[in-house]
Amino acid sequence: MSYELYYWPSIQGRGEFIRLALETAGADYVDVARTEGGMPKMMTLMQGGGPRPPFAPPFLQDGPLLIAQVANILLHLGPKLGLAPSDEAGRLWTHQLQLTVADLLVEVHDTHHPIASGLYYEDQKPESKRRADDFLKSRAPKFLGWFETVLSRNPGGSRHLVGGALTYADLSLFQMIEGLRYAFPRAMKRIEADIPRVAALRDSVAALPKLKAYLASPRRIPFNEQGIFRRYPELEG
Amino acid sequence: MSYELYYWPSIQGRGEFIRLALETAGADYVDVARTEGGMPKMMTLMQGGGPRPPFAPPFLQDGPLLIAQVANILLHLGPKLGLAPSDEAGRLWTHQLQLTVADLLVEVHDTHHPIASGLYYEDQKPESKRRADDFLKSRAPKFLGWFETVLSRNPGGSRHLVGGALTYADLSLFQMIEGLRYAFPRAMKRIEADIPRVAALRDSVAALPKLKAYLASPRRIPFNEQGIFRRYPELEG
Repeated sequence: MSYELYYWPSIQGRGEFIRLALETAGADYVDVARTEGGMPKMMTLMQGGGPRPPFAPPFLQDGPLLIAQVANILLHLGPKLGLAPSDEAGRLWTHQLQLTVADLLVEVHDTHHPIASGLYYEDQKPESKRRADDFLKSRAPKFLGWFETVLSRNPGGSRHLVGGALTYADLSLFQMIEGLRYAFPRAMKRIEADIPRVAALRDSVAALPKLKAYLASPRRIPFNEQGIFRRYPELEG
Repeated sequence: MSYELYYWPSIQGRGEFIRLALETAGADYVDVARTEGGMPKMMTLMQGGGPRPPFAPPFLQDGPLLIAQVANILLHLGPKLGLAPSDEAGRLWTHQLQLTVADLLVEVHDTHHPIASGLYYEDQKPESKRRADDFLKSRAPKFLGWFETVLSRNPGGSRHLVGGALTYADLSLFQMIEGLRYAFPRAMKRIEADIPRVAALRDSVAALPKLKAYLASPRRIPFNEQGIFRRYPELEG
């Protein structure tokens, strides 16, 4: 049976981390909200009376299981898709990497929404500029520098974050770099000078045949200014 | 062998979610950074050359395993401490609840640090006021209302979040309510009118004998204005 992914149909957003794992593994899945009648179906699952309601998309229906929270979905999918190590310690470590990607992602979002996610960017522009300045100067280099350290110390080699094989954490770091390059092209040129292993990981993930085909397909929604990674040139001035 | 918890010694912060689980289970543990020579030991583990370095405290040493990220630590500890369900679906759901607590916690933190975690509160007071207004009006009620819904729909009854027994998610929701009451006493009176089941869960957790003893002991660090939950009366004006 197909996996059913539920996520907003017009942005990459948090759902993209799940899409990348499903696509790279060649899994059979339906991106429900992008099908006819899919949006009402998603809203019903969120607002209906189920015993374990998701707080927000994305969520995944896998047979009887309805699972929300990106990292939780990947924790569940990783072993099934062959994108997680087989040992328990390795799975916890992969999950730890994913949770750190999630932390960074919140900080990316808040560069354009530091005051309230319910307000428009236009209503919080001066605050966004202050937050983005700090993000690009301190936070992004700190997080990405940590991933560089992880790659440099991986006993399995610096081509992967965990051991000697591809995991969902590699895919998620790829997506983070893609998004940051879209949002902050000039700042990322500077930041990436110090994270050569992360940049090389991004390239090797981009070259995976199934992922490459996905990225070139209409299934890959282009980055846009409704998503998490937004290009507002004034924020990296 | 004892668990070794590593966290900043002067705040509850994120480490408190781990402390509550260990204390409630009566587990044998050392709060390392609060022992003599503990802080340098913590810094060495973070900045030393280990193959799987934590990005930030808290982290837990359990035999050969060094695990960071609160939700990840609880994912690992839950079954060992008898604070997680035995079935896989239940464990994922408990983890999902914990990840949603973590999301809310970031938003609590950002009520006093909306611009930069590296700046003082005093350097971002007007922005904090705007963010706290939105938090108390929209975000906190939305998150806490969702937990109320979860309790009301739990097939095991509304005394627990998951099934009919205590899990680490109950302890974490307790801590969230305690913290919010400390930080925003007036706003919480208003908000809690709509979440009676959450308030009742807080009370029943507070009455657990081992937890009650912990809360009354010097091991429970008082809330203070260096932690995540801070009482700045001007933010709820």
